[in-house]
Amino acid sequence: MAPQYAPSLRSRLPLVAFLLETIFILLFVFFVKIEQFEQIDRESDSKPFISSYAEFQDIHVMLFMGFGFLATFLVRYGFSGSGFNVLLAAMAVQWAVLMNGFLLAQRNHRGKFNISMKSVIEAELCAASALIAMGAVHGKTNPVQLLLMALVEVTGFVVNQWILRTLLRADAVYCIMLLHIFGALFGVMVSWVLYREGVEPVHEKEKTDRKTGLFAMFGTLFLWMFWPSFNSALVNPRMGRGMKLTVIYGTYLSLAVSVVMAISVSVLSSSKGKMNMVHIQSSALSGGVAIGVAMTAVHTPWVAMTIGFCASLISALGFRYMKNHMLFAFECHDTCGVLNVHAIPGILGWFAHLFLRLTNNEGIIAVQFAVHHICVLLITVCVSVVMGVVTGLFLKWSIWRPQQDRKCFDDQAFWEFPNLAVKK
Amino acid sequence: MAPQYAPSLRSRLPLVAFLLETIFILLFVFFVKIEQFEQIDRESDSKPFISSYAEFQDIHVMLFMGFGFLATFLVRYGFSGSGFNVLLAAMAVQWAVLMNGFLLAQRNHRGKFNISMKSVIEAELCAASALIAMGAVHGKTNPVQLLLMALVEVTGFVVNQWILRTLLRADAVYCIMLLHIFGALFGVMVSWVLYREGVEPVHEKEKTDRKTGLFAMFGTLFLWMFWPSFNSALVNPRMGRGMKLTVIYGTYLSLAVSVVMAISVSVLSSSKGKMNMVHIQSSALSGGVAIGVAMTAVHTPWVAMTIGFCASLISALGFRYMKNHMLFAFECHDTCGVLNVHAIPGILGWFAHLFLRLTNNEGIIAVQFAVHHICVLLITVCVSVVMGVVTGLFLKWSIWRPQQDRKCFDDQAFWEFPNLAVKK
Amino acid sequence: MAPQYAPSLRSRLPLVAFLLETIFILLFVFFVKIEQFEQIDRESDSKPFISSYAEFQDIHVMLFMGFGFLATFLVRYGFSGSGFNVLLAAMAVQWAVLMNGFLLAQRNHRGKFNISMKSVIEAELCAASALIAMGAVHGKTNPVQLLLMALVEVTGFVVNQWILRTLLRADAVYCIMLLHIFGALFGVMVSWVLYREGVEPVHEKEKTDRKTGLFAMFGTLFLWMFWPSFNSALVNPRMGRGMKLTVIYGTYLSLAVSVVMAISVSVLSSSKGKMNMVHIQSSALSGGVAIGVAMTAVHTPWVAMTIGFCASLISALGFRYMKNHMLFAFECHDTCGVLNVHAIPGILGWFAHLFLRLTNNEGIIAVQFAVHHICVLLITVCVSVVMGVVTGLFLKWSIWRPQQDRKCFDDQAFWEFPNLAVKK
Repeated sequence: MAPQYAPSLRSRLPLVAFLLETIFILLFVFFVKIEQFEQIDRESDSKPFISSYAEFQDIHVMLFMGFGFLATFLVRYGFSGSGFNVLLAAMAVQWAVLMNGFLLAQRNHRGKFNISMKSVIEAELCAASALIAMGAVHGKTNPVQLLLMALVEVTGFVVNQWILRTLLRADAVYCIMLLHIFGALFGVMVSWVLYREGVEPVHEKEKTDRKTGLFAMFGTLFLWMFWPSFNSALVNPRMGRGMKLTVIYGTYLSLAVSVVMAISVSVLSSSKGKMNMVHIQSSALSGGVAIGVAMTAVHTPWVAMTIGFCASLISALGFRYMKNHMLFAFECHDTCGVLNVHAIPGILGWFAHLFLRLTNNEGIIAVQFAVHHICVLLITVCVSVVMGVVTGLFLKWSIWRPQQDRKCFDDQAFWEFPNLAVKK
Repeated sequence: MAPQYAPSLRSRLPLVAFLLETIFILLFVFFVKIEQFEQIDRESDSKPFISSYAEFQDIHVMLFMGFGFLATFLVRYGFSGSGFNVLLAAMAVQWAVLMNGFLLAQRNHRGKFNISMKSVIEAELCAASALIAMGAVHGKTNPVQLLLMALVEVTGFVVNQWILRTLLRADAVYCIMLLHIFGALFGVMVSWVLYREGVEPVHEKEKTDRKTGLFAMFGTLFLWMFWPSFNSALVNPRMGRGMKLTVIYGTYLSLAVSVVMAISVSVLSSSKGKMNMVHIQSSALSGGVAIGVAMTAVHTPWVAMTIGFCASLISALGFRYMKNHMLFAFECHDTCGVLNVHAIPGILGWFAHLFLRLTNNEGIIAVQFAVHHICVLLITVCVSVVMGVVTGLFLKWSIWRPQQDRKCFDDQAFWEFPNLAVKK
Repeated sequence: MAPQYAPSLRSRLPLVAFLLETIFILLFVFFVKIEQFEQIDRESDSKPFISSYAEFQDIHVMLFMGFGFLATFLVRYGFSGSGFNVLLAAMAVQWAVLMNGFLLAQRNHRGKFNISMKSVIEAELCAASALIAMGAVHGKTNPVQLLLMALVEVTGFVVNQWILRTLLRADAVYCIMLLHIFGALFGVMVSWVLYREGVEPVHEKEKTDRKTGLFAMFGTLFLWMFWPSFNSALVNPRMGRGMKLTVIYGTYLSLAVSVVMAISVSVLSSSKGKMNMVHIQSSALSGGVAIGVAMTAVHTPWVAMTIGFCASLISALGFRYMKNHMLFAFECHDTCGVLNVHAIPGILGWFAHLFLRLTNNEGIIAVQFAVHHICVLLITVCVSVVMGVVTGLFLKWSIWRPQQDRKCFDDQAFWEFPNLAVKK
């Protein structure tokens, strides 16, 4: 195939997807069974099934609707933004159920493990980290590359959890909340390796219009509204009776402050005093990220609000001043700005967590806690950066047939528009 | 009125709607009362109210948001697609509450029956079958025709349930899940009778653009995400303790596989290796349909995944190769492809159900079960096909003033666009 | 700055928002603490936490998604319609939590009060009244004006509740349901004072197109679908065991009738027999407003349906005939028609409430009840009208830098569209 024609996915995507899907079904045959009702009853004093199902659905909506429509802001990339999101999330969830089962779950004597509400929620959170990573490379990769990246990312994230939980005896809920930092750094590294010299710094198709901005608003709001469930879903009563409530109200207030600050900073940092829709949509979410990482140390509403205040401030300034700097100085292009939405507010949340624990004087040994806390972050950052670079090199292989430079950020590389053709 | 002017709805729609609405209110006066709290308490050990309300809302969202926006994919038919959906669903639900009450519910000594969460959920499922039927005739009928069709369809579907439940003693949940087959065949038959010779095989307005494709994505995702509630809402603990969980996880996994397969097959069957948004949106849902019909016989996750795999494969191939064949060979135009989304996956689910029951060796007499199972399908198919043809002939009557051929698939036949006119 | 240039928000909005947000956080430091789990347990026999959380989320979706997208119907005002809605709602909720805490909630000996699911739901309902008020002035004010208006409106609404509850001993749930009347009259008064002579009666940008109509459909449906939760969230078992169910089914049926009537009246009152999307979207909601005010007196489904029937009839006729009359005769421009959606159906609901209570013969003294009921309405109307006029005069001050007349109903006054500029 001559290079002037767009590479076709016909010989790649169906093959990879069929193969993976068949492997997944086979693994489900041998390893997965459905949770028995007796087990639920036994635990039902602490958390009834209906409650888990409602929380699961909130997260389900965030994953498929929220992330999907958040990525439709590019003017010619709406079908890909939402379509690839569904494809990746559906595959990543299946793979995460298996990976979590193999590495982290209890297995019975025949090696089988249960699929339960908890395991599905955990799998969706792992898939969320892959979707965050995808945010950094949107528009510059084809769906085969995205699919492989997502599966590697989920594997890395589960392995990272396994390391933290077995070697450092870190708290399970805290480990999973590092998904923001892990996913964002992984994605940014992949994007850095895949940088295309041939593309101008700002691609002509990388822009928003009135309608795609509204579609993205839509995804943003779903993420924004259901974030209290995202943070609180895995908090169970054993962690202290009021913890779940504290997390819900804290996330709610943090996000409320976050959106006000995002709009204010966007106006203040604009020379004409105007708001930037894409910046606001992204920064409004940073409060939820930061409070998610800090949440088990937050006990009062005003602390949560202050964390949301700071996270949004840093995130909004990062969008205005750091995104282009990263592009020109480090040749690293970050389509959805995941570094400013997920990585930096996540690290801010990590600092808040450390600071609050040390000042709360909860009967812990300060130095010991600080060292442990720093190790957790360092391991996560190392694993994500290294795996991101390796994955990037693997995806750079031309066998995956990435689209041409001029077809970046464009649905026409992947989607049929037969009727539009008639129109012209 | 000269034929060259578009027929006005002014003398038809308000009359029909006022009349029907008045009749409905009068029937509610004499026959419907609100469920007493004491009755709920008595049953509350098996299923608390809050759980039913949450499931009801998921189905409510699917009906009004999901089906409504799924039908906005046509480039000039968005207002009608979503607006007529709300009109029909609102009327069909009221009528279905009454029909279910008269034919299927317990009535007290004064002939009254309760409106309860269960009755509202059943009514919404009956209305769903009418909305599926509407999918086949979208764009070629006016709202008066759609309204009459919906009420006849609901009547037919409830009568069909009554026949199956009283004559064949079929399971109530299974009977109602045949809504996909009943609705789709009914709609296709109506569309076949109403076929317009004057319209070219592919109407110039029957196409999708970037934005309407996203609106449809939106409806698709709402259906896709909440399908586990759709299938499990009427499964109650008496059917076996773990059944509800099995249905929820099964539907979830079946749909996850289904969407991956829909994308793969769409790429594989395209000569340029590109995806077709409309095909993918439709086929992604076929896994939920198939598992819905088969669900009470599915006990392991991998069986559910395999059913989703096959349903999506057949559905996606049907969209690519069978839809046009149906149009040219049988003069049957199916706007939303309900035959490939609902009827064929539904029949596949029926086969899976039969096969699983026979192989599961559940202590049933194989021949007896098979005969019973075949009778249920045959009766449903016959009732839907016959009623569809009769309804089609009734709607062909010119008194209903259908729009002109060139106004098919066009909002301007029914909606005011005064401001747009100023623009031109 | 010369008047021919658009006024910049840079020196106003960030200052006001930073200042308010800082004050809010300080007030939260001193006055708000998180509900203790023990308190929930004590009340859990009547209403479990998970139930409140689910209801809260429905209302949360209505507030941020429903009201936000309802206001995107204007062709060039989508970003502002949805963006300002989030800004205002986020600020109003924080302020309403504080106001409710100071005036209406129980406080402990150190003057602190709890943030709980109930307080958050109440705060969101208060914020809803501010969003209704905003509906009347959309497109003619800048975000600083909107922000100040929202905070004054919330203050007024909470004070009004305090007056009704302490002086007249009115029922708390009934007082809060007057939010429709209070918000709408407040907004209409502000809009009347802010009337711009220079703008032509119908501004050239005040129109809808195919896509913005669908976005608005979207917001409408979210409001429409979750309205039963909006009305029933604060109804607790102490008000009579079956009351909550009656409210849910009543609201559901009222809205179903309402949407059918809205479409019928829209067709009937159009000279060409066509439907008007904006009218239908608005009138479809009037049934929920009317039943919300009347709900505690409604005991049978058909009464609810009749209220929905009448509310929608009046509302749809008001849109067709009264909106322009108000504009030309009273120089009062009502962007979203809140008078016809919220005020008039609300007052209809008030009359229905009065009539039903008097005929139900519930052992109350008719004259006493009537006088009390009339006082409640009169006080609410007076407080809202007076505060609306005062707020309008305050906002007319040029220090707030409203946009120029030709930039009304236009996002470009407030939002960056850098990429679109490149395109041109």
